Amino acid sequence: MPDIQEYIHSYKKILGRYIDDYLEDLIRKEREHSSRQVADLYGIFREAGKGGKCIRGSLVKLGYEIALNRPAGDEILPASAAFEIFQTSALCHDDIIDKSPLRRGRDSIWKAISRDADRHYGISQAICLGDVGLALSCRLVLESSFGVNEKMKALGIFLDVQTDTMDGEMLDAYMSQKKDYGDERGILKISELKTARYTTAGPLQLGAVLGGASQALLDALERYAVALGVTFQMRDDILGIEATEAEMGKSNTSDIAEGKVTLLAHYAMKRATADQLRQLSQIYGCEPVSEKERVTVQGIFQSTGAFDEVMRRAEKYLAEARDVIPHVTQDPGKIQLLTQLCDMMFKRKS
Amino acid sequence: MPDIQEYIHSYKKILGRYIDDYLEDLIRKEREHSSRQVADLYGIFREAGKGGKCIRGSLVKLGYEIALNRPAGDEILPASAAFEIFQTSALCHDDIIDKSPLRRGRDSIWKAISRDADRHYGISQAICLGDVGLALSCRLVLESSFGVNEKMKALGIFLDVQTDTMDGEMLDAYMSQKKDYGDERGILKISELKTARYTTAGPLQLGAVLGGASQALLDALERYAVALGVTFQMRDDILGIEATEAEMGKSNTSDIAEGKVTLLAHYAMKRATADQLRQLSQIYGCEPVSEKERVTVQGIFQSTGAFDEVMRRAEKYLAEARDVIPHVTQDPGKIQLLTQLCDMMFKRKS
Repeated sequence: MPDIQEYIHSYKKILGRYIDDYLEDLIRKEREHSSRQVADLYGIFREAGKGGKCIRGSLVKLGYEIALNRPAGDEILPASAAFEIFQTSALCHDDIIDKSPLRRGRDSIWKAISRDADRHYGISQAICLGDVGLALSCRLVLESSFGVNEKMKALGIFLDVQTDTMDGEMLDAYMSQKKDYGDERGILKISELKTARYTTAGPLQLGAVLGGASQALLDALERYAVALGVTFQMRDDILGIEATEAEMGKSNTSDIAEGKVTLLAHYAMKRATADQLRQLSQIYGCEPVSEKERVTVQGIFQSTGAFDEVMRRAEKYLAEARDVIPHVTQDPGKIQLLTQLCDMMFKRKS
Repeated sequence: MPDIQEYIHSYKKILGRYIDDYLEDLIRKEREHSSRQVADLYGIFREAGKGGKCIRGSLVKLGYEIALNRPAGDEILPASAAFEIFQTSALCHDDIIDKSPLRRGRDSIWKAISRDADRHYGISQAICLGDVGLALSCRLVLESSFGVNEKMKALGIFLDVQTDTMDGEMLDAYMSQKKDYGDERGILKISELKTARYTTAGPLQLGAVLGGASQALLDALERYAVALGVTFQMRDDILGIEATEAEMGKSNTSDIAEGKVTLLAHYAMKRATADQLRQLSQIYGCEPVSEKERVTVQGIFQSTGAFDEVMRRAEKYLAEARDVIPHVTQDPGKIQLLTQLCDMMFKRKS
């Protein structure tokens, strides 16, 4: 029987090589067509894409195989690559917004470019590189070997996912800036738009459409994947505070420093004592955040029961996701993969 | 006989209404689908798109009519709108990069959003809004009523134009940061990528492809439009220093403050006396720039003959563009429009 970790791991190698070759070829063309300097910047973008977990690219393949009902060939690589490159772009812009200097254990793109000049220069070039990545991601779908009608439909879904992701990011920035931790519905909307559509539903549906999925299959995937994605976000919020930087490959104080609006923060604030609330108001959303302050916040999230409550909610969403699986596929191997995916999202350490 | 000003002016009204309705409909959907806050941000994006000159959208129509050899109907509106919305996105990101608070006589997008919060918040939301606009621009082409094959080809060109525009922007940022005013070839490359492809060649070719253009026509349009676009950039550089803010609707010191690498600056530095060079090094690329300093720079650009030299170069490119026109079209009305376009690019006041 297949194993989801192995499914992702073995595809990651192939996809990583494909993306690397694709970008290498592009960089060579850029050197001729535009300039050495621009080609070098593309090189930074390529490096930033390495070391990802390749979940989204793998889910494109999984969605494709579910719709197709047989193993995928190389034809799905460009669409998987498209999603991974879209992700690199989104993270590139996200790291500017979150002021994160670290990503995947290395300098984030704006930070890497800033090294040779100043911060504003790094941000400027990173904005452009992110834009380039968005266009490249669409071009990859466009240039894939599928029929024109499948490609048009896939591009439609892909562009919707891109706007949904940005909508979620904007709502997130808005609520963080307003320090609005009371709006539970808004917080779940952010997860749905920014995480579920972007991390799980979008990739699965993009792949499925290219495999000729019916609308019923697309709808079932949506229900499965949104529940799964919301769980993923809850786990992400917990890891953002609990995990070490080494585990995460990114800062474990940035969520606190930016005052990220999460379900975790929502429950903690709702249940905090007056004294805890005073402490949170002095730390949460106030940069810089020291390790001691991070531990204080972690302690409050623990003692208020916010961690436990979010875990309970996550388990409920996971149960929903599991219930939908029989509507997605009858194939035992695929059922196993989709079930394991639920566990993986919930138990991951990074 | 047709008149290019009238051609653009009359289309601007129709296209403006089309874009407004399209975005209004989208904003209404966003309010339901995502949130009121995100819908409001889309509203700022819509407002920012108003008051443009509508050159690019009109050139999409002109390219289409040249290829089609008859007047365009409403079917070309989505592709024209796509280019205008891409432009709003590009300017939205460009204004962050150039730190411009002003655009089209109003607050630039990041500045408008910053009003209710802080600068970083405005920049964050403007990055996302620009990303949304890029996706919307592609969706408009995708959803237009043309055949799938024409749309695929058009999208391919459109995505190439988007990457070329960003490549030009990156090269520009690189050379500005290095204060590299000596590389004439690099400066022309920026014009070709960032202006010609984006302002003239891209729109004309996007329209032409949808009208069923042959490769020969696309090539002729490329030659015409690149020469025209480089002229446009030269005029832009002159206006960026000579025009008043009221004329331009944007800052007339920002080019100087950011130390913009232009052919104008190239010639001025090459021909400046030691004393003039010292003055330039104290003003050009050093913010803030006062009105008195702007006049000093303008004076040096005048007395070194840099203005005159750039005008001469522009006239040479214009002559090239005019020479290509008979290869683009035999239609007397279209020939007149393309000829007038040359004059318009060269003599425009804003």
